[in-house]
Amino acid sequence: MTVSSNDENSEMVVTPWEVKGKVDYERLIREFGTQPLTKELLNRIESHTGSLHLQLQRHIFFSHRDLDTVVDLYEKGTKFVLYTGRGPSGPVHIGHLVPWIFTLHIQKKFNTRLYFQLTDDEKFLIDDEATLEQTRHYAYENALDLIALGFKPNDTFIIYDVEDIDMLYSTALEVAKHVTYSTARASFGFQDSTNIGWVFWPALQAAPCFIHAKLTGENVPALIPAAIDQDPYWRVTRDVAQKLGYYKPAQIHCRFLPGLGAGGKMSASMPETSIFTKDPPDLVKRKIWNAFTGGKGTATEQRKTGADPTICSIFQYYFYLFEDDDKKLLEREHKCKSGAMLCGECKTDIVFRLNKFLEEHRKRREKAKDTIEQYHVKR
Amino acid sequence: MTVSSNDENSEMVVTPWEVKGKVDYERLIREFGTQPLTKELLNRIESHTGSLHLQLQRHIFFSHRDLDTVVDLYEKGTKFVLYTGRGPSGPVHIGHLVPWIFTLHIQKKFNTRLYFQLTDDEKFLIDDEATLEQTRHYAYENALDLIALGFKPNDTFIIYDVEDIDMLYSTALEVAKHVTYSTARASFGFQDSTNIGWVFWPALQAAPCFIHAKLTGENVPALIPAAIDQDPYWRVTRDVAQKLGYYKPAQIHCRFLPGLGAGGKMSASMPETSIFTKDPPDLVKRKIWNAFTGGKGTATEQRKTGADPTICSIFQYYFYLFEDDDKKLLEREHKCKSGAMLCGECKTDIVFRLNKFLEEHRKRREKAKDTIEQYHVKR
Repeated sequence: MTVSSNDENSEMVVTPWEVKGKVDYERLIREFGTQPLTKELLNRIESHTGSLHLQLQRHIFFSHRDLDTVVDLYEKGTKFVLYTGRGPSGPVHIGHLVPWIFTLHIQKKFNTRLYFQLTDDEKFLIDDEATLEQTRHYAYENALDLIALGFKPNDTFIIYDVEDIDMLYSTALEVAKHVTYSTARASFGFQDSTNIGWVFWPALQAAPCFIHAKLTGENVPALIPAAIDQDPYWRVTRDVAQKLGYYKPAQIHCRFLPGLGAGGKMSASMPETSIFTKDPPDLVKRKIWNAFTGGKGTATEQRKTGADPTICSIFQYYFYLFEDDDKKLLEREHKCKSGAMLCGECKTDIVFRLNKFLEEHRKRREKAKDTIEQYHVKR
Repeated sequence: MTVSSNDENSEMVVTPWEVKGKVDYERLIREFGTQPLTKELLNRIESHTGSLHLQLQRHIFFSHRDLDTVVDLYEKGTKFVLYTGRGPSGPVHIGHLVPWIFTLHIQKKFNTRLYFQLTDDEKFLIDDEATLEQTRHYAYENALDLIALGFKPNDTFIIYDVEDIDMLYSTALEVAKHVTYSTARASFGFQDSTNIGWVFWPALQAAPCFIHAKLTGENVPALIPAAIDQDPYWRVTRDVAQKLGYYKPAQIHCRFLPGLGAGGKMSASMPETSIFTKDPPDLVKRKIWNAFTGGKGTATEQRKTGADPTICSIFQYYFYLFEDDDKKLLEREHKCKSGAMLCGECKTDIVFRLNKFLEEHRKRREKAKDTIEQYHVKR
């Protein structure tokens, strides 16, 4: 199942390959059949992490499957591993970093291993124009961005699908044998014109859920922090997991950082609406100054009636990543609504914060070139 | 397309997974759209091989695709490689050896390389009961039978799909991207209940057609000697080959050694009708004595009216493998038809020849355990 329909205002499409329109997260919880992250569950997590991560406090991660079971097991002494990944179709943008930053937090607090899959095969299969050379190149490039966030090589295992297929294939075969074409069609919307590589591919995305058992002999659950568009993969994987003698993979789902245009997630296919980690300062500035905000037609009008931060793409940047301090965020919101702060000031601030972050990120990213091999999944 | 329909006498089914009924080879040439092996083409082959192999003389290999093109290229200085394989669903029987013996002949005469694929993944995917452990075990066992026939390690590269997936996967992805689900369904008869691994798998069988270019940089055609039931794979592969910049794979198709029952090919799923290379002498004897022949109800009657070698499974054994001498074969046929030789004598002879062959084969097979690693595809 994927969610795709006309709403009153804009069409919402949420599939593993496309997210557009205004995303209604309450509706996704209902239609995907996931669980909301309750206060009680957040309290249990907080009891292990000391304080609640910003992305949990602000409900950027808002939904889950079996996170409670993973916490139950953890409290009884069964650890879990983390698994997430990236489809290397192009360079990484700020939106991609959101769940990775959260993943790093969970990894540190629970002292656990991360398997990170770079799906160079998938991106080749689903894009007519893509070559394997390109997607494998981006896999390397994207891994640098992951490492730049501060992951440590001893417990971060990066899997490059094409290069590491020997580790994944037999597990993918076991999964594939339990997934009929009709199940795959219903889950992913496959059509007669879909190529047979793409049809098989969900088995490849499932394989890392079980790789820890394969490598170490320890059968523990995988917890997958990722944007909710990936959910169809895990529904299929969960059905198969128990038949193969593994735990069902658990998920914790995040929202999409909105793009700089009106509505939708940041998309690499609309480069003007995303900030990429390699964007130079002047390009960042230009993109931010062209961004969609909740501002009014004139400064005079806005000073009088205020602006609307709820529809402002810039405000979301503060909310997701660039204002940790709740008090300051609230202050900014009030100033915006009252007209005391105009869009120009807010944009100037975010350009400064973004460029400062990106400058540091790029330094760490450059250093990652020396250590990237240490992160390659160990056999 | 696969051929499957009711004939006047018995239902003929010829697909990559099932062959049953009386096989009408003329009809297969028409319906598969292949070319008969003409006298002219046989003469051209003979001009390179010195004499025509028994299996060509007797039209056991009877049909082809693009063999003439391969010979054209060869005569102009472009070599070819051989590619064939085996689905390791169980032990090898005498019928499997027929095309391998011919392949060895072509390899020697044209001094060329053989890629031999053991499809442990396929046999796992298509059989509900099979485990990967089993199919991988049989892959090893079956490789011993291949090597026992006299192939040399320097130009015989055995590929075990699961173990060697790292060599095949990127080529399989390139192929898969060009094969839609609807093409695969039409070619292989896939259904909604087919698992997604099986749907992808034809791309894996295609990959070795192009592996030589990948390993050596030499873009040369592959010639595939195999039973005609595999033809649907090559039709799909041929369509894709040129899009990827490779030669279309050429084929030369053989008949099936009939089983010891009435009609059909030898099938590992009907062990009483096949002679396996590991069958001990007394079991060979029992199977032969229980075999279907063209004999009459009583010895007296048969001495008077003769028997019918055209429907006799034992006579086929002489024809395919155990009587090289055309004159002696003809003599046996005459004696059978006239009633001068009864089934008992013919059976006693074939039991002797079979057991002698198998005894030698098993000795070489045992020795192959020491050298099998030398045949593993070199990277």
